[in-house]
Amino acid sequence: MGLDSDLSKIPDHLKDHDDPVFEFNKQIIEQTHPFAIAYKPNLAFYESLGSKGWQSLEKTIALLKGLDVFTIADAKRGDIGNTSKMYAKAFFENLDFDAVTVAPYMGVDSVSPFLEYPNKWVILLALTSNKGAFDFQFSVNKDTSAKLFEEVIAKSQQWGTAENMMYVVGATQANMLADIRKIAPDHFLLVPGVGAQGGSLEEVAKYGLNDNCGLIVNSSREIIFASNGKDFAEKAGSKAKELQLKMAQILAENKLI
Amino acid sequence: MGLDSDLSKIPDHLKDHDDPVFEFNKQIIEQTHPFAIAYKPNLAFYESLGSKGWQSLEKTIALLKGLDVFTIADAKRGDIGNTSKMYAKAFFENLDFDAVTVAPYMGVDSVSPFLEYPNKWVILLALTSNKGAFDFQFSVNKDTSAKLFEEVIAKSQQWGTAENMMYVVGATQANMLADIRKIAPDHFLLVPGVGAQGGSLEEVAKYGLNDNCGLIVNSSREIIFASNGKDFAEKAGSKAKELQLKMAQILAENKLI
Repeated sequence: MGLDSDLSKIPDHLKDHDDPVFEFNKQIIEQTHPFAIAYKPNLAFYESLGSKGWQSLEKTIALLKGLDVFTIADAKRGDIGNTSKMYAKAFFENLDFDAVTVAPYMGVDSVSPFLEYPNKWVILLALTSNKGAFDFQFSVNKDTSAKLFEEVIAKSQQWGTAENMMYVVGATQANMLADIRKIAPDHFLLVPGVGAQGGSLEEVAKYGLNDNCGLIVNSSREIIFASNGKDFAEKAGSKAKELQLKMAQILAENKLI
Repeated sequence: MGLDSDLSKIPDHLKDHDDPVFEFNKQIIEQTHPFAIAYKPNLAFYESLGSKGWQSLEKTIALLKGLDVFTIADAKRGDIGNTSKMYAKAFFENLDFDAVTVAPYMGVDSVSPFLEYPNKWVILLALTSNKGAFDFQFSVNKDTSAKLFEEVIAKSQQWGTAENMMYVVGATQANMLADIRKIAPDHFLLVPGVGAQGGSLEEVAKYGLNDNCGLIVNSSREIIFASNGKDFAEKAGSKAKELQLKMAQILAENKLI
């Protein structure tokens, strides 16, 4: 469940609350958590509200820590070592997220500080769901004949393991999942892009499942903004349930549950 | 001037203040601003302190806006279009920075939302100053024979101009600046890595200057942590002056001032 809680899109009746974004998240989480294994707040939507938005995030993660769910900071950070160390502190110590998304462009020392935390996960961008993915991620390396996203997946396996690293692979790139499974058979993949961005759950499962499931499928806008009336949380619950049932059916068909 | 204002490194006598990070920044800025053309807060050091750190950042940018300096949010953001739009809002509307550093991995739609703001700048990561730069940034493209950082510079010139886009090129990669000037003769380059990271100002100037100067050279830790006693701000002022005089001499030798 992506918590891309855009203040301009949340129902009007919440806007009188002291903290409308947190109130929105709270009601969404209450209705959807029976159907969600993980929540993924998208940092941009909190930062765009300044320190007040950061407070909404702090309250949201505190609420999530009381539930039995995996938490992902969708932050796409990455900087030189001493700076990445500070980002790791922000997300793993202060906010106590289980995982954070990290951009690979700056290489090993931009990622390693996150991997030093026991029981925490790096989710490295590999192949993203947007059209800009075609600008650099498919560049073929002259020496290895690997595409850049394949290089990222291959090289980063020297930095972390399938026990502390996952990869972002967009649902809109489902046909590439079979190739990715050849180089990362065991890693969990975080798959955004199902729903509003047009990715298909069936396609993602067909090419991306492994013996352990190996997929965390994310949907954000399609669920959280299913309605902007007073029934927004209930409607989000129904949408989440719908997606969870589809996933359960797929898992059953593949004898994974 | 990089404001990598690490709470654990600021002088002890400031730690009783309500907001030690802002107090540190304020005194540093007072002493260094005669010698600095730009300030670059590094977001990680503020985020690592949660909403309180974000407040220190808000106060710091408010102070900087009252001075005649260019302001850079060193944030290295980049996400799908609707998310990058929110990051652009965070840094250009709410905080009113003049520029933000952006990671190129996700391509055009991760960068464009920042370019839509008039009189604001994107500073795109090209060739960074850290050792991880060698992991992917030097990958040679099979079709174009360009290195990845050269591809980033070439392709992104279709998205923005030398009037709203700059590139990050690490001072530790000074020997690459000559090649970069062949493909980006007019763009300003933001050059971190002088000082604590080991880059040389002379080398950077030798290969990176253009007819317009074309360089914003950053130093952070070497200046702001020049002393951790009560004289920290004065010492930072002296260090900043030293670097500014070196730069002025180089500009004079090159008939740029």
